[in-house]
Amino acid sequence: MKTAVIGSTGYGGVELIRLIEGHPHLELAMLVSTSQAGERLSRAYPHLQHLEYTFQELDVERISQETELVFLATPPGVSVNLTPQLRARGKMVIDLSGDFRLEDGRSYEAWYNRKAAPDRWLEEAVYGLSEWFAEEIRKADLIANPGCYPTATLLGLLPLLRAKMIDHRALIIDAKSGVTGAGRKVDQSLLFCEVNENLRPYKVDGHQHIPEIEQIAGRFCSADVKVRFVPHLVPMNRGILVTLYTPMLHKYAMTEVLSVYKEAYESAPFVRIVERGWPATKAVQGSNFCDIGVHVDERTGWITVLSAIDNLMKGAAGQAIQNANVRMGWPVETGLKGLPLVP
Amino acid sequence: MKTAVIGSTGYGGVELIRLIEGHPHLELAMLVSTSQAGERLSRAYPHLQHLEYTFQELDVERISQETELVFLATPPGVSVNLTPQLRARGKMVIDLSGDFRLEDGRSYEAWYNRKAAPDRWLEEAVYGLSEWFAEEIRKADLIANPGCYPTATLLGLLPLLRAKMIDHRALIIDAKSGVTGAGRKVDQSLLFCEVNENLRPYKVDGHQHIPEIEQIAGRFCSADVKVRFVPHLVPMNRGILVTLYTPMLHKYAMTEVLSVYKEAYESAPFVRIVERGWPATKAVQGSNFCDIGVHVDERTGWITVLSAIDNLMKGAAGQAIQNANVRMGWPVETGLKGLPLVP
Amino acid sequence: MKTAVIGSTGYGGVELIRLIEGHPHLELAMLVSTSQAGERLSRAYPHLQHLEYTFQELDVERISQETELVFLATPPGVSVNLTPQLRARGKMVIDLSGDFRLEDGRSYEAWYNRKAAPDRWLEEAVYGLSEWFAEEIRKADLIANPGCYPTATLLGLLPLLRAKMIDHRALIIDAKSGVTGAGRKVDQSLLFCEVNENLRPYKVDGHQHIPEIEQIAGRFCSADVKVRFVPHLVPMNRGILVTLYTPMLHKYAMTEVLSVYKEAYESAPFVRIVERGWPATKAVQGSNFCDIGVHVDERTGWITVLSAIDNLMKGAAGQAIQNANVRMGWPVETGLKGLPLVP
Amino acid sequence: MKTAVIGSTGYGGVELIRLIEGHPHLELAMLVSTSQAGERLSRAYPHLQHLEYTFQELDVERISQETELVFLATPPGVSVNLTPQLRARGKMVIDLSGDFRLEDGRSYEAWYNRKAAPDRWLEEAVYGLSEWFAEEIRKADLIANPGCYPTATLLGLLPLLRAKMIDHRALIIDAKSGVTGAGRKVDQSLLFCEVNENLRPYKVDGHQHIPEIEQIAGRFCSADVKVRFVPHLVPMNRGILVTLYTPMLHKYAMTEVLSVYKEAYESAPFVRIVERGWPATKAVQGSNFCDIGVHVDERTGWITVLSAIDNLMKGAAGQAIQNANVRMGWPVETGLKGLPLVP
Repeated sequence: MKTAVIGSTGYGGVELIRLIEGHPHLELAMLVSTSQAGERLSRAYPHLQHLEYTFQELDVERISQETELVFLATPPGVSVNLTPQLRARGKMVIDLSGDFRLEDGRSYEAWYNRKAAPDRWLEEAVYGLSEWFAEEIRKADLIANPGCYPTATLLGLLPLLRAKMIDHRALIIDAKSGVTGAGRKVDQSLLFCEVNENLRPYKVDGHQHIPEIEQIAGRFCSADVKVRFVPHLVPMNRGILVTLYTPMLHKYAMTEVLSVYKEAYESAPFVRIVERGWPATKAVQGSNFCDIGVHVDERTGWITVLSAIDNLMKGAAGQAIQNANVRMGWPVETGLKGLPLVP
Repeated sequence: MKTAVIGSTGYGGVELIRLIEGHPHLELAMLVSTSQAGERLSRAYPHLQHLEYTFQELDVERISQETELVFLATPPGVSVNLTPQLRARGKMVIDLSGDFRLEDGRSYEAWYNRKAAPDRWLEEAVYGLSEWFAEEIRKADLIANPGCYPTATLLGLLPLLRAKMIDHRALIIDAKSGVTGAGRKVDQSLLFCEVNENLRPYKVDGHQHIPEIEQIAGRFCSADVKVRFVPHLVPMNRGILVTLYTPMLHKYAMTEVLSVYKEAYESAPFVRIVERGWPATKAVQGSNFCDIGVHVDERTGWITVLSAIDNLMKGAAGQAIQNANVRMGWPVETGLKGLPLVP
Repeated sequence: MKTAVIGSTGYGGVELIRLIEGHPHLELAMLVSTSQAGERLSRAYPHLQHLEYTFQELDVERISQETELVFLATPPGVSVNLTPQLRARGKMVIDLSGDFRLEDGRSYEAWYNRKAAPDRWLEEAVYGLSEWFAEEIRKADLIANPGCYPTATLLGLLPLLRAKMIDHRALIIDAKSGVTGAGRKVDQSLLFCEVNENLRPYKVDGHQHIPEIEQIAGRFCSADVKVRFVPHLVPMNRGILVTLYTPMLHKYAMTEVLSVYKEAYESAPFVRIVERGWPATKAVQGSNFCDIGVHVDERTGWITVLSAIDNLMKGAAGQAIQNANVRMGWPVETGLKGLPLVP
Repeated sequence: MKTAVIGSTGYGGVELIRLIEGHPHLELAMLVSTSQAGERLSRAYPHLQHLEYTFQELDVERISQETELVFLATPPGVSVNLTPQLRARGKMVIDLSGDFRLEDGRSYEAWYNRKAAPDRWLEEAVYGLSEWFAEEIRKADLIANPGCYPTATLLGLLPLLRAKMIDHRALIIDAKSGVTGAGRKVDQSLLFCEVNENLRPYKVDGHQHIPEIEQIAGRFCSADVKVRFVPHLVPMNRGILVTLYTPMLHKYAMTEVLSVYKEAYESAPFVRIVERGWPATKAVQGSNFCDIGVHVDERTGWITVLSAIDNLMKGAAGQAIQNANVRMGWPVETGLKGLPLVP
């Protein structure tokens, strides 16, 4: 199946290239980059110097003629315009940006400070959290690939929420991410000497992934969920760890809680319930796994959920491929069987 | 003033050596190490090869004859026995271990799983959080130097608690530490290749710093405080960042909250209130500063406090020297004026 | 083809597991660990918690009955005894340790300070540098997988040596390695806080990879080669960069030198000649590539060769799989097509 | 003594600020930054938020009126114009840039690709390698502070060269630097995710520190020295390690070589001869030390010199302060007694 990757010079784009190259049913037919059109891939990414690709201009007609499935790994606002054009030409779109994740255009405009896509297309979009919405994804032609933080958070949160075990009015999400989460942005704050040996919070005032978490969480408790979410930048390349704190509605034993998770994910090959020790980002590095651990604190009556992913894999490109597999009816692990790269 | 450092081969001990060497009124008269007695300091720490020290056996009589002030940077349980002997000989003791921080011996025994010191000495000990207990410290001969996590947590928490602005029944403390916090322990889990490019929680079941935080917090709200505290290991050498979440009792504006902090710390030279951007561990690296930032979240009604220290400085050796300064009536910044080492 | 991995708890062993799991023709039939026999793999390596393996005792009979090909990722001295037993039972052996790399047992005994294997088996062993000795490897039943430093060094050096362009009497090899090169050894000098933010040389007096380099280099210039080799430890997990300096025998232009390399490696898919920029360890991370760059310095008449590999891949497990492919007549890239994990 | 720092927003500038703030005889009277004039220091460097400085415009008259000693931590080419103006007004200048290090203006123009300063001022400049040129520095009003690589290289090389023990026709210098050496340049190649877990050579074609090394080395052997110098970028913030290889002219024992070094540096408090183990960058981190180790290789007849400094200290700001001390007749360690920050 011929695919195009648009926005192929960023970290999400290059991870897509890695996965598509190793996928038995996908073929990389076009690499599109507006900023580096005409340039060879090996110039942007010397580690791929043996591959013979050249970045193409963004040409919707050509993309539509030469490919069937389009991955968008573009900055906010690009997909708003581009996806309707691709959809109008009948192309399947998996959008890794945030442009189609929020059902409510006003919410998008408030949090992203940009014009939202037309309602018609927002309505068509399916939220691509494969473990929970596979049925919709199987029929979708416009899949909004979840954000990295929402993926880790929701996979950890939804089982408890669905089981009505926790008080959704107090959801404290302390999130920590490696630096690839910020993209390949040339900014002083992302220089090695600024980030290395440093830990810092950012966007404490409000991160655009908040409404995405709240929207999906709300579906599972029929309420207007508000979460407290603070992200932190950790001096490492890959990995997200979410530590979620919430009060239990009743006293639950660890075994009860664990069985809720095991049941929720019994047929989800990428979710591993960690019962010995705790999730760690390195244990999922380079893989599509989400590792989840839980702890019931009898002293306070709060439950803590720990959820670890590789932000470029399960948090972006890996989940995009997973969505393609689900959509096409291929086994969900196709092209995603690589073990974590450890150490 | 002649001092001894007991437990001088660990990371806390070597930081004490650095500070005492640069202190105008303190003299390093004895370095004690039971594990490396007879060995030269330069063998344990080649970066100090120009210093002519040899580790001594632990000999309470000699320590008492040759020094006036003793710093203990020993593992849990050592000070329980040693400090009473030193105090019985009239020596001043600043204990960097946790052995004298908890007033209640039973609590110590429950959390540390060791025999507590006799009540007589527990009662004598003063908790050395200089910014809040300077009056007691000035008269104390046995100062229990606070733990690294409690230092960062309490400096961030106490102003709000004293002002009765928050609900002490929901105190969520998400703590992140550099690896020196684990000491110089030769353990597989602390090898470079295991820690590097990894982020992981630890002691999710319960960390021994919890009762220390609860004891002091309890004093400020006359209640039996229970906190939810989860520490995480971050791939960097130094630095602690505490992110504390708690619900506000009323609606407060940021300016109100900030003024509470400014007032609390107006004469505390090591506490800096960060109003522009957010605290970051690198900004305090190698210094005795504690940087504090606050955020009022109107959406949820929760307040977030961010507190950053260098765990070996304000979280250990720096605060110990600060306590010595307070105790001796020297200006509090004596020997602690070094700026953060950045970048 | 059923395989056993002996010494499967080290970093080389776990990388072999990753590769064998992804190889279409190899099956992981037995994991052997004397130190952790009876333990589950997921306990030593939680990132593999979804795999159902248990470490077995070392039982030569059982290994011989249940597998055809044995990979040894054992410490020095183990293979000396074990390999003859396996060979006597007709098993094919690929030995990742240094026990069979040196033809001369006395050299092994001098550099490794251990008893060498019997001459009979040393004679049988073939040096597994696939790009140069494929013909011998195809017929070999005992393959001595090259060391990490020799692999990077020899791939960079041999084309020049064979072409008689350089003076073999002055070969200066400055080598830099990530920390996985030291193995999973629980040693104070390998703790995170000791290695991080540190760069240091080691074994300046003599590294056991020196005779291995000299033995192979000697074959290509019919001389008794002596190299100056100094390794350094770099604060990163994976990667070796070798910078090799040697005087040119005549004046050569860059193009001449490059064409020698291109010719040498025209049918070697894992060797990439870098003409734009210079080799970097990250560009080969997680892959089996060796990236080589060269520079002719007209001011001094010396040539500099830069050679980068992932020490666990091309420097160990990757090359072992490559040797298995060559030996079995499978396409050399089988199971090794994974692109570098970047960033 | 009132001082100005020009170019105070870079890493060298901020290290100067740290040292001047801790120096008993120097006062920071003016911070000059053309790019951030009018801005507060705490905005460029939040770790200094408690200091009340504002960056000034570059105003030579004002600088001359308000200060006596000017430190220039400016990019190449700035000092060429600025220093003559300051000298014409009688100010003492310590220039941390490369503009006055090369005696021969044509050499500067060839290597820096910029117009050199007028000969008159080049002639006035004294090369500020304090350990070797203290006599000239004591009388100098224009001190060219050595480059980071030349400092580490020359301190390691000059004793052997002066003693005529080595063949200056083969000087192989393999240099490794932390990332602060590249300055605070906002460039994609210096982003955290590009540098972290990566080791790479750079400027293999020729680094501008080469003529500086050759010029000084040439003085000590009365010859036209040509060195082979290749720098590498190491994923850490601070530190340079130089590994220098050169053939011995005769057979020397280690003790002979060591005694040459000990004699050369017996009254040099910042140079430490490492006889146990080898120099490591962390052992000098944050300090003005240069640690030197040597190894005589009997197999090849080559000698290896290892030299480690903190590039921002002995390689820049620390050496600048040392030069100020020498020039003013203050004890050479004034304001530089801080021990290395370890771990």
